[in-house]
Amino acid sequence: MAPEVGALPSDSLALGARARARCDALGAEPYSEAPGQLTRRFLTPAHGAALDRLRVWMSEAGMTVRLDAAANLIGRYEGTTPEAPALLIGSHIDSVRNGGRYDGALGVTLGIDCVEAMARAGRRTPFAVEVIAFGDEEGSRFPASMTCSRAVAGTGAADVLSMRDAEGVSLGDALQAFGLKSADFPKAARAASEVMAFFEAHIEQGPRLEAEDLPLGVVTAIAAQKRFLVRMAGAAGHAGTTPMHLRRDPGPAAAEAILALEKICVAGAGGVVGTVGRITAHPGAFNVIPSAVEFSMDIRAETAADRDAVAAAVIAEIQAIAAKRGLGATVELLQDLPQSPCDPALIRRLGEAVEAVGVEPRLLPSGAGHDAMVLSALAPTVMLFIRCRGGVSHNPAEAVRDDDCVLALQAMLAFIDNLEREPTR
Amino acid sequence: MAPEVGALPSDSLALGARARARCDALGAEPYSEAPGQLTRRFLTPAHGAALDRLRVWMSEAGMTVRLDAAANLIGRYEGTTPEAPALLIGSHIDSVRNGGRYDGALGVTLGIDCVEAMARAGRRTPFAVEVIAFGDEEGSRFPASMTCSRAVAGTGAADVLSMRDAEGVSLGDALQAFGLKSADFPKAARAASEVMAFFEAHIEQGPRLEAEDLPLGVVTAIAAQKRFLVRMAGAAGHAGTTPMHLRRDPGPAAAEAILALEKICVAGAGGVVGTVGRITAHPGAFNVIPSAVEFSMDIRAETAADRDAVAAAVIAEIQAIAAKRGLGATVELLQDLPQSPCDPALIRRLGEAVEAVGVEPRLLPSGAGHDAMVLSALAPTVMLFIRCRGGVSHNPAEAVRDDDCVLALQAMLAFIDNLEREPTR
Repeated sequence: MAPEVGALPSDSLALGARARARCDALGAEPYSEAPGQLTRRFLTPAHGAALDRLRVWMSEAGMTVRLDAAANLIGRYEGTTPEAPALLIGSHIDSVRNGGRYDGALGVTLGIDCVEAMARAGRRTPFAVEVIAFGDEEGSRFPASMTCSRAVAGTGAADVLSMRDAEGVSLGDALQAFGLKSADFPKAARAASEVMAFFEAHIEQGPRLEAEDLPLGVVTAIAAQKRFLVRMAGAAGHAGTTPMHLRRDPGPAAAEAILALEKICVAGAGGVVGTVGRITAHPGAFNVIPSAVEFSMDIRAETAADRDAVAAAVIAEIQAIAAKRGLGATVELLQDLPQSPCDPALIRRLGEAVEAVGVEPRLLPSGAGHDAMVLSALAPTVMLFIRCRGGVSHNPAEAVRDDDCVLALQAMLAFIDNLEREPTR
Repeated sequence: MAPEVGALPSDSLALGARARARCDALGAEPYSEAPGQLTRRFLTPAHGAALDRLRVWMSEAGMTVRLDAAANLIGRYEGTTPEAPALLIGSHIDSVRNGGRYDGALGVTLGIDCVEAMARAGRRTPFAVEVIAFGDEEGSRFPASMTCSRAVAGTGAADVLSMRDAEGVSLGDALQAFGLKSADFPKAARAASEVMAFFEAHIEQGPRLEAEDLPLGVVTAIAAQKRFLVRMAGAAGHAGTTPMHLRRDPGPAAAEAILALEKICVAGAGGVVGTVGRITAHPGAFNVIPSAVEFSMDIRAETAADRDAVAAAVIAEIQAIAAKRGLGATVELLQDLPQSPCDPALIRRLGEAVEAVGVEPRLLPSGAGHDAMVLSALAPTVMLFIRCRGGVSHNPAEAVRDDDCVLALQAMLAFIDNLEREPTR
């Protein structure tokens, strides 16, 4: 059953707090693919249902709404001059499997509340304000992530439409099934002249603001990250008849590699973190020694240099483990994102806005990748972090406070004041 | 395309060698689910196609053929007295994923050749001879294995029909889709009075006969085995923002457990072997620290005591790893098969038969589980091992020699001579 969104107490909440409550409303079926959890992957019916709901909210806030060719939903609130460049405010509306309700979605619903606050005050700026809900940031359906912000920035791979999900459906076919023309996909790219700046509000997804008792933070840069797929290959055999000393089993080899990644990251510099999120043994039968084990490896650090030092050490260790055990090992680089600094002038202005609402302006880097990182190829970018409970994210236990969201909205409005007084372009 | 089975050179081969060639004919589509490999799981169309082919071969050999209520194909060659108890000869016709062509199937095709040799000689024994092709031994589709020999022995679990495959299809529904009545499943059980003995010919699936330059071996007992499902549970989190020291990641914990299993088995007594054939991280996204990692654990030894000593040590190690890392760990016992001795009188007679065909009668235990282990609840059992190249099994590289198969068939016929001279019951 769809939740009774219209009956939500959200209209009685302060703007900002309502944005948080709306994320809760989007946290269950039909806005999730699975009962009892939030899984909203790109171009699924759950994604479509969420866009239908956002379209209503954007319209009610005073925006004209369109779906672009990459399934990004865009609401536009015109400025004093028609067709003025836009301050683009947004984040992603997709989730990881069994994720939290605020990761991404809160940046979209806060954008809507921001415009609604302006519209209620009858306020127009020299620039337009657009709110965008990116369709894919997490990469939880197709192998690549940030597909939709790349489409807007015009930096996507030429063969992006041919990438396939686990069921073998290509992105091109999924777009068609969603009612879009896959051939139009490149038309989602925006001209730099149309976009004055990109602003993203997002939960911190880490424990630092909470540890310092601060509701908000200003992001200086986004961490460098690399994703790898590691494959260790041995020889399949019967689990009952192959003596231990004659095995070429890739399972214990992969286990050694996973422990090497952990050990090297714990000892590493620059806040480096390493994660194995997926692992598969082939053929995957209880009574068969695997012929191969594949696992993902995600490595991030504040700088590409720190990240690459760790990655090189881990890959060398994987090769040594494979050599010692008489196995094959391949390490495929799937994604390479350098660190991405936010715009210094916008960082300063957002810091002033945060200070104007009574919060000490804490500058901090982001360990997570964000659409802002990709949009920096198109326009100056800036990000506001919102404290989240326990630093927990990508988890149903994600939680944020209403008063923090109200402060975030006030800081966004103050930032727009700053921009109006002193435009960036 | 189906192979041109009718055009096979098998009719020009000696019986026994033909049995091997027939396994090759069954090694590709339509007798396999997948092109370029042999995957023939219980109640799939590939299984059905193999039964159609076996039905023809059984009829040509002089048997009357029926499909029992558990999808076992049974050909009967009457003895001198109608309705006499039967010597049951057989093995399984299912395979692991991407398995070998002889594991199981060779025991069925040798049984057919054995009857055909008797029929060509116009020979009838005081007992009937039945050839049986069990539908499931490997457990490669449903969670339990040896479902069909258990059905015949009448030792299956009461709730066996409700177990489900990876697609969520229950065994009951799969039987119906195969054209059988699931409610009839218990009717596959045979009365002890109908079965004089059970004989299984099978490739060794290990390296011992080859190392001793022997074509055949007589099995003394089948190893004790246990299957477990281990689940290590921590806390999901964002791969980019959760510092290493704050993680409760079950991945490295599972890695430590897999290495502990390997180390303990290498040091263990009684030919103990331990295998992790399947491993899964949940939710399984590249950028999410897993909330849980599950893996299978198969432990076998010549005696239950040796096996249980290793299992207890590994489980203690798993609990210690979980405690050290602040994680949860559960170890579920999925299957417990004690060592299963073959019948001493039949072992002696099969040894004499092997000697009669000029082969030194080597007695050896089986590290792998076999249908004979299950049938021992119904009748005295005996097993003949056939040398396989490199001891390789559960692998497309499985290979056996034609001359070994001819010797195996001769030993089977000599064993029947011995039984006729001195009946067991």
